[in-house]
Amino acid sequence: MRNLNQDNITQAVIASFAETENPRLKEIMISLVQHLHAFARDVKLTEGEWFQGIEFLTRCGHITDERRQEFILLSDVLGLSMLTVAMNQQRPKGCTEATVFGPFHVKDAPHYELGADIANGAKGTPCLVRGRVLSADGKAIPHAHLDVWQSDEDGLYDVQHEGLAQAQARGTLNADALGQYHFRSIVAVPYAIPHDGPVGAMLQATGRHPWRPAHLHFKVEAPGYQPLITHVFRNQSEYLDSDAVFGVRQSLICDWVAQADGSYLLEYDFVLNPVAQG
Amino acid sequence: MRNLNQDNITQAVIASFAETENPRLKEIMISLVQHLHAFARDVKLTEGEWFQGIEFLTRCGHITDERRQEFILLSDVLGLSMLTVAMNQQRPKGCTEATVFGPFHVKDAPHYELGADIANGAKGTPCLVRGRVLSADGKAIPHAHLDVWQSDEDGLYDVQHEGLAQAQARGTLNADALGQYHFRSIVAVPYAIPHDGPVGAMLQATGRHPWRPAHLHFKVEAPGYQPLITHVFRNQSEYLDSDAVFGVRQSLICDWVAQADGSYLLEYDFVLNPVAQG
Repeated sequence: MRNLNQDNITQAVIASFAETENPRLKEIMISLVQHLHAFARDVKLTEGEWFQGIEFLTRCGHITDERRQEFILLSDVLGLSMLTVAMNQQRPKGCTEATVFGPFHVKDAPHYELGADIANGAKGTPCLVRGRVLSADGKAIPHAHLDVWQSDEDGLYDVQHEGLAQAQARGTLNADALGQYHFRSIVAVPYAIPHDGPVGAMLQATGRHPWRPAHLHFKVEAPGYQPLITHVFRNQSEYLDSDAVFGVRQSLICDWVAQADGSYLLEYDFVLNPVAQG
Repeated sequence: MRNLNQDNITQAVIASFAETENPRLKEIMISLVQHLHAFARDVKLTEGEWFQGIEFLTRCGHITDERRQEFILLSDVLGLSMLTVAMNQQRPKGCTEATVFGPFHVKDAPHYELGADIANGAKGTPCLVRGRVLSADGKAIPHAHLDVWQSDEDGLYDVQHEGLAQAQARGTLNADALGQYHFRSIVAVPYAIPHDGPVGAMLQATGRHPWRPAHLHFKVEAPGYQPLITHVFRNQSEYLDSDAVFGVRQSLICDWVAQADGSYLLEYDFVLNPVAQG
């Protein structure tokens, strides 16, 4: 411990975790230190670069508040969020696939009756959304709980509008006894993730755009089934092949059909994965 | 891009950095993504653990301000700071070794004349510090600039004392024409790094203590020489063999000698590494 060098310091740090009681925490800390040190060694990180990293993380922390989560954005654009989803959300064929949670979910969104307009004043082209919540065997799941959130036609979520008091284009609903759900909202559009902060500066410096293809977020839950966090993407949206957060799944892309009156119709059925009964 | 899975997402994220103009930034981002993903894969990171990580970084950001730098603390206790120093501060034998910068340096500390008492009211046993600044060939370096900072007898730096207006136990000085420096201060004591935040919680959860052995910080600079950021450690201090930030070097440990009047004397010569002339 009195003369650690670049070759033996990693082992010394690993040894410092020897007394960790929780075996999972110990495993995570040891792996984290190994990979963090390997990164620093591989690029031969300079002291100036190290300090830029400290400043970058500090800026991420200082811009994060109740309405903005820069660390989730960072994880999203580095593909860590989608990797974590991919590792943990493997489902049998036929079940609806999961994708990233994103930074814009709000706990305790307003609850609506089926058929309500969850736009609640958000700007956009009207869109009727409907479908069923099914089990993998094709049977209806009654009364599933749906949590929906999306951007408005300016590409902004309600929480991004300074001073907006009420929830817009977000809400929860329960499907009916036959597994059917329907609600009114607005047409989602492609939007840029918040890029006026450190993550945006990183995207710009690396020649990357901040755009995501048009999508609706859903969190669908029912007793006895694995909770599903996913999007429904709009077919032929821009950025389906260059999503800034790597979240697109072909099976989640759907036609949003123009109606005679200028509104749109989106129909999508969710298929949930039953969990083994305890 | 429409069906990335845990096996091919890393390549897709790497490809997203293809247009990065700065080749060094490109190298760093690609290596970072590879190691970050490898970590997540190795431990098979769960979504709950991912979210705990997001919350941990958020807490680090929110506790960081002008007087506290939790991300440097985090880097320090994970050995990343000392690894970075070790990779970048290799010096010829005979030159004073470098160690971690730490989170308590302050820009624009007050400047003192040689002989001044930089304690400036800080609590502690008086200590005279003196020595020379030399070149590797043993010759004096005239007028080197020294920046000194240390904790008080309670183990706290001035910036950790809420509401304290003036600098205490920190300051800058210039050695004289013969390379000699001397100033009065107080005896350093072992102290715990700030452990009331997320980094402290991590240390506690992993069975680690937050203590550092007694030391004085020095930053020594002179034209034509590689700047030196280092500590002088007190011989026989507790924690020399379990420094929470892995910063001890045997060559930086020194006797702090008790004097007849109850004060102490610390004598230490710094040997700087000449840089190649351009």
